Amino acid sequence: MSSSAWCAIPGGVTAPQGYEAHGVSAGIKLHGKRDVALIVSRQPALVAGMLTTNKLAAAPVLLCRPILRRGKAQAIIANSGNANACTGPQGMQDAKTMIHATAETLRIDPHLVLVASTGVIGRPMPIRRIVAALSDLALGLNAHGSRAAAEAIMTTDLAVKETAVEFAVPHPARCQGGQAPLAPATRKALRIGGIAKGSGMINPAMATMFAFLTTDAAITLPALRAALRQAVAHSFNAITVDGEMSTNDTVLLLANGAAGHAPIQAGDTALGTFTRGLTHVCETLAKAIVRDGEGASHLVTVEIRGAISAHDAQKAARGIANSLLVKTMVAGRDPNWGRVAAAVGASGAHLNPGRLTIALGGIPVFHHGRPVRVNPLHLKRIFEHSDVPISIHLGVGTSHARIWTCDLTEDYVRINAKYTT
Amino acid sequence: MSSSAWCAIPGGVTAPQGYEAHGVSAGIKLHGKRDVALIVSRQPALVAGMLTTNKLAAAPVLLCRPILRRGKAQAIIANSGNANACTGPQGMQDAKTMIHATAETLRIDPHLVLVASTGVIGRPMPIRRIVAALSDLALGLNAHGSRAAAEAIMTTDLAVKETAVEFAVPHPARCQGGQAPLAPATRKALRIGGIAKGSGMINPAMATMFAFLTTDAAITLPALRAALRQAVAHSFNAITVDGEMSTNDTVLLLANGAAGHAPIQAGDTALGTFTRGLTHVCETLAKAIVRDGEGASHLVTVEIRGAISAHDAQKAARGIANSLLVKTMVAGRDPNWGRVAAAVGASGAHLNPGRLTIALGGIPVFHHGRPVRVNPLHLKRIFEHSDVPISIHLGVGTSHARIWTCDLTEDYVRINAKYTT
Repeated sequence: MSSSAWCAIPGGVTAPQGYEAHGVSAGIKLHGKRDVALIVSRQPALVAGMLTTNKLAAAPVLLCRPILRRGKAQAIIANSGNANACTGPQGMQDAKTMIHATAETLRIDPHLVLVASTGVIGRPMPIRRIVAALSDLALGLNAHGSRAAAEAIMTTDLAVKETAVEFAVPHPARCQGGQAPLAPATRKALRIGGIAKGSGMINPAMATMFAFLTTDAAITLPALRAALRQAVAHSFNAITVDGEMSTNDTVLLLANGAAGHAPIQAGDTALGTFTRGLTHVCETLAKAIVRDGEGASHLVTVEIRGAISAHDAQKAARGIANSLLVKTMVAGRDPNWGRVAAAVGASGAHLNPGRLTIALGGIPVFHHGRPVRVNPLHLKRIFEHSDVPISIHLGVGTSHARIWTCDLTEDYVRINAKYTT
Repeated sequence: MSSSAWCAIPGGVTAPQGYEAHGVSAGIKLHGKRDVALIVSRQPALVAGMLTTNKLAAAPVLLCRPILRRGKAQAIIANSGNANACTGPQGMQDAKTMIHATAETLRIDPHLVLVASTGVIGRPMPIRRIVAALSDLALGLNAHGSRAAAEAIMTTDLAVKETAVEFAVPHPARCQGGQAPLAPATRKALRIGGIAKGSGMINPAMATMFAFLTTDAAITLPALRAALRQAVAHSFNAITVDGEMSTNDTVLLLANGAAGHAPIQAGDTALGTFTRGLTHVCETLAKAIVRDGEGASHLVTVEIRGAISAHDAQKAARGIANSLLVKTMVAGRDPNWGRVAAAVGASGAHLNPGRLTIALGGIPVFHHGRPVRVNPLHLKRIFEHSDVPISIHLGVGTSHARIWTCDLTEDYVRINAKYTT
């Protein structure tokens, strides 16, 4: 295992050393499904996170903000079935109760407890049920509890989403200026794990995305924050299901240092390794969210090249990935690339109409401003694969962007229209 | 009839004096449906227009631009079934051929001929069929031809869209500074008419919006342009079906002065009257486009008040009107207002969570940051009406905005997915 490679390992959020998790049913969701999850680090950990920028951020999101500013936490308590959003002062009180009751049960400082909720908006929280479930939840905590916790944060997700990687860093990890350490270093195994739930297409009234990540890496808070920012930019912020942003979107990353190596800090080559591993974990969970889009039959990768700036490349990619006509085109297995052209033209991104090039499933259909003659039957075959790449060269620069999305099927509308509160 | 009131009259685009129109089948669309339209003013007219800002504007759009800069035109030749977009240099040649062949047939200056195309993108134009149909089209021109022309620009529109109004202006129309004219004026009847076709939801691969408008008003070019800009802002630019902007969107307004009154110019009170009449015509056609959205079962009016700026009010209104979760909520007759809250929070518009108020169908569901207890069965009844108003007060200012949209049903996806080029 080289210092820049990683191995996928089982265990999800409890794969790293020093973490336990569990999930139980508190009776918020029907049919006795698990709906409360707890993830605990044996020792206080550093924490970095990204929270929704929705102006109506839910009560739990508001309570996570000061904890993320301080950067220290030990537990995450989360529920599905009720988002505790648009619930007024009572909702804020209920979220505080979740924190305090969890801290009391675990006998830890309430300032170290993060809280997250997902589900229907605008309904009072069944807070007594949650509190009543806490002792069972804490009693069940174990080092293989990732799956139970992952199930407990699902809303209408069809698939449990968990992943983990292991890789080695030099110990001491410090290699300043990219130089090799003066003394031959031992190597320490380090793990990153995560669970997630999806949003948008997956969720009738519950368009929330959660990712709870753990690592046993020893790392400084600024390095942890930088790594998470970069990983999220290339994963959770590079997917779009239906352009919706929830009141509750939450990504949290605990780092408890249990791997016992010298702390990774800004400038270390080990930080690059850590960031690549974290990005892989986040990308795996992000793509799992898109693939699990309710009714989704294809994962669509929109690749933009030749843009005048990274911002413009993003604009073009999102314009295509959020176009209903493009998404229904893929669902209908119709290689009608004119919809892609119209969407990129409408996106506001700079482009040169005489240099624009479009390829569907690797087959060029529009080259330097002119349509390419392609056998439509040949072109239709690209939809036989579950992954459909759409590649565009804007012909005005060298910047690029990549966005993952899924297609829009009748099932999406059926589920979202027929779901009744 | 007061100077600020108007009467709805029949006749569409040929209601104003001095216009003729017709539509025939050139064999571009199947089943002998009309697919080429011609609108002609007996005398050269002033023209104002608004064209798509899509960076891949189609060849006909590119050829309309210099004519709109000069502001003079006499005829509009339009076809459905092929958009002549992304067709390269051959497409440009074909659009020029449409103009020149029309000018020759009508024996007018080709610089006075506007051209517009709608239909599938990226396919060569069946230009010979169009040219071959021109003599029949010109022979059939008549002062009651609006409906045939309106049919010929339809793609999958279910309803013909035409409207006209009549109102009176003082003659001479000039009333500077809002004062009454010195001498008692005669009053002249003046007409504005229009036809339109829809976009987005209506159109599988043909997301184009056309509106062709005529008036017999005598008016200066700057006044005509100002009136159209204002009317479009409150009508065609205040609707959204699926957030798509086509390569071919075209609004054209001919003014031939045949009503024979003193020309309306900037500063005249008559310009206000004219603008209100024009806005009414545009609003009627715009709402007809939304109502005719394929599969649409409700017209949704999103009203934003209390915004910090007009720009912010627009942002909030569009955020809600383009939210798939809000649109499927209306389709599913599910008064799940949390989706509206999430969409307005995600829109980026400034809002005060503690002052925010939301009403569905006139019933408050969220007031000053707290949910309002409403009987859900009572609330569900709002969907029995075909018009569903969604009103939001952002609680931070005094600006407002209004956007019309339609709901998103399974039929939309079915039509757009199953349509195969």
